[in-house]
Amino acid sequence: MPPIIGLLTDFGLADPYVGQMKAVLATQAPQSTVVDITHGVEPFNVAQGAFFLAASTPCFPIGTVLLSVIDPGVGSKRSILVAEHDGRILIAPDNGLVCLATCPETTRFYHLIQSDRPVSATFHGRDIFAPLAARLAVGERIESLCTPVNADRTVRPLWSEPMMAKGHCSVRVLHVDRFGNCVLNLRAEALGHLDNLTIRTPLGRELPAVDTYSDLPEGAPGLLEGSQGFFEIAVNQGSAARQFGLSMGDPVDLEWDA
Amino acid sequence: MPPIIGLLTDFGLADPYVGQMKAVLATQAPQSTVVDITHGVEPFNVAQGAFFLAASTPCFPIGTVLLSVIDPGVGSKRSILVAEHDGRILIAPDNGLVCLATCPETTRFYHLIQSDRPVSATFHGRDIFAPLAARLAVGERIESLCTPVNADRTVRPLWSEPMMAKGHCSVRVLHVDRFGNCVLNLRAEALGHLDNLTIRTPLGRELPAVDTYSDLPEGAPGLLEGSQGFFEIAVNQGSAARQFGLSMGDPVDLEWDA
Amino acid sequence: MPPIIGLLTDFGLADPYVGQMKAVLATQAPQSTVVDITHGVEPFNVAQGAFFLAASTPCFPIGTVLLSVIDPGVGSKRSILVAEHDGRILIAPDNGLVCLATCPETTRFYHLIQSDRPVSATFHGRDIFAPLAARLAVGERIESLCTPVNADRTVRPLWSEPMMAKGHCSVRVLHVDRFGNCVLNLRAEALGHLDNLTIRTPLGRELPAVDTYSDLPEGAPGLLEGSQGFFEIAVNQGSAARQFGLSMGDPVDLEWDA
Repeated sequence: MPPIIGLLTDFGLADPYVGQMKAVLATQAPQSTVVDITHGVEPFNVAQGAFFLAASTPCFPIGTVLLSVIDPGVGSKRSILVAEHDGRILIAPDNGLVCLATCPETTRFYHLIQSDRPVSATFHGRDIFAPLAARLAVGERIESLCTPVNADRTVRPLWSEPMMAKGHCSVRVLHVDRFGNCVLNLRAEALGHLDNLTIRTPLGRELPAVDTYSDLPEGAPGLLEGSQGFFEIAVNQGSAARQFGLSMGDPVDLEWDA
Repeated sequence: MPPIIGLLTDFGLADPYVGQMKAVLATQAPQSTVVDITHGVEPFNVAQGAFFLAASTPCFPIGTVLLSVIDPGVGSKRSILVAEHDGRILIAPDNGLVCLATCPETTRFYHLIQSDRPVSATFHGRDIFAPLAARLAVGERIESLCTPVNADRTVRPLWSEPMMAKGHCSVRVLHVDRFGNCVLNLRAEALGHLDNLTIRTPLGRELPAVDTYSDLPEGAPGLLEGSQGFFEIAVNQGSAARQFGLSMGDPVDLEWDA
Repeated sequence: MPPIIGLLTDFGLADPYVGQMKAVLATQAPQSTVVDITHGVEPFNVAQGAFFLAASTPCFPIGTVLLSVIDPGVGSKRSILVAEHDGRILIAPDNGLVCLATCPETTRFYHLIQSDRPVSATFHGRDIFAPLAARLAVGERIESLCTPVNADRTVRPLWSEPMMAKGHCSVRVLHVDRFGNCVLNLRAEALGHLDNLTIRTPLGRELPAVDTYSDLPEGAPGLLEGSQGFFEIAVNQGSAARQFGLSMGDPVDLEWDA
């Protein structure tokens, strides 16, 4: 099986930036297959990118190199992170982008060894990240390019997990899809068995936990496990974003009878 | 020659859905080459997708698997269709999406054998369609996964062909391109020899049948065979959609001296 | 190493045109790897496409075939250009699209030998350009399909290089990126050593030549070498396009103490 390199960025497709990264990959890892996850992440929206990456990583086979570049800190001293998780290698700026796709307890983390000399006229995606992904895709050992670091020395943003307490939790909207469904930083398995669970929001709205949109009356909201592995607030035939006034990044408090 | 899988959806490229389908294809049919036809079909516009598919299928070599997912009925009982046509395999929801690329007389049609159990948290493109395309691309026999069905048990929408009569026909606008050309569900060969043919519309406009845009006076409309194999109403240096007030899906009556 | 074909067009991704070109490439050059540079060039903007192509060509390995189609003259008698430059083969309409990626002194230029018969219902990208790229990618000799031409018989637009004089130059804005940086048709090496150089614009604004955005006070403009190999007018944390009222194609005069 040829090595696979997955790509996720906020570069869009109107500029030639993604194409230049792929040209470098085709040059330096010519046998690899490159798969675009998406390049349509909202510019600099690390949380949305982290959700897309976490939802997509399990679709790729063991051995895949997943390169993600959403990099608001590109001019600063931020580190470059390499994470080995469940047999896949994730590469990204160390800004939280891989936090939903990895696990502090079981993932091995590394920082790329970089020269201190600042480089002008450099496009990091093309000149640093793509060559690194190519070298790891063709089998170079991570340890020859990177230093191991403890998980607690990597960036884990507040939204990397919900704040859970008995009977309530504080979550964050990671993504609003084109139907207005609001994806939360709450994994499908986080609430345990959901039968007959009803969740309340601070607005006094009730959200029955359901299996599919069609279990809800038309226009009524609920909480359901989306196909991307995270809970979402959805409205049958309607927009939860509009009904609840939610945007990406907004906090939401949920409570239930424990 | 490695197997080729062509992809057509209305998922857009801002979400990771297409990337997840490609990750599944790269896992399950690792030697295949994936070619995007487009993912920019207007959401749920089956007729536009059917036109794009019919226009693109002949560009692919014999043996190609063409997977198309535009699926307004995803929650319902709609079947999944596999069609073997001219040496290529087309996979799509059974909603008319393949009707312009196939032929009731010569295409062999099948329905995928599916379990009755509804599956929540399922993204059909990734979890049902992509694995099916991968299995057929690597050479699994259609008959081992599907049941043959008669053409008349597959969905053929009204717009799958024009209503023809002596001296007139009723057609439908399948697609309006960015120049305002209006593509009709009328194949290039449908009107026979066109020399000196002039067509009338109900608005009293005359449409000479011409070979190229430049055969028309500037700003004047005509009917010509587009490069996609279907007739289109076009205006030289102008927008036929605006001049005739036409949108995708609109009916148009054409008449001529028979 | 499999042959690589880079693709650049203004076709966008909403229509199936790029997919049809790729289907032809997959049929006629099945071992090749196709890399999209971008298909998001502003429609018919040859100068922007020429900049994207010049910035991206060096990222591709020797032997790559780079096919670019931005073709406002598609109906006319324009020639089809093949250029062999630095070990890569560039194919494009002869309208200036390759002028920033090639060099009149060292590039070898050719025109495709075409039949005189005009072809209706032809999509040149799919029916002429893609088959030509496939044939050259699989190793067919340029001379078997094309006639050598002198550089001065190829189209070189006014914007192909700046007008330089002692102490000033007239340049053109090739591209405005999403941050408002204005890329000029002025190569990074064109001004020689830049230390302590300050450039003036006709608006009386001073543009210090700097290495990085952060060398400028916030909100202040400067001239710096971008990562794409050309100078750009940039504003630290702001939009140069807005501050100077510049759009793509606009001329700019620069002067300095010689």
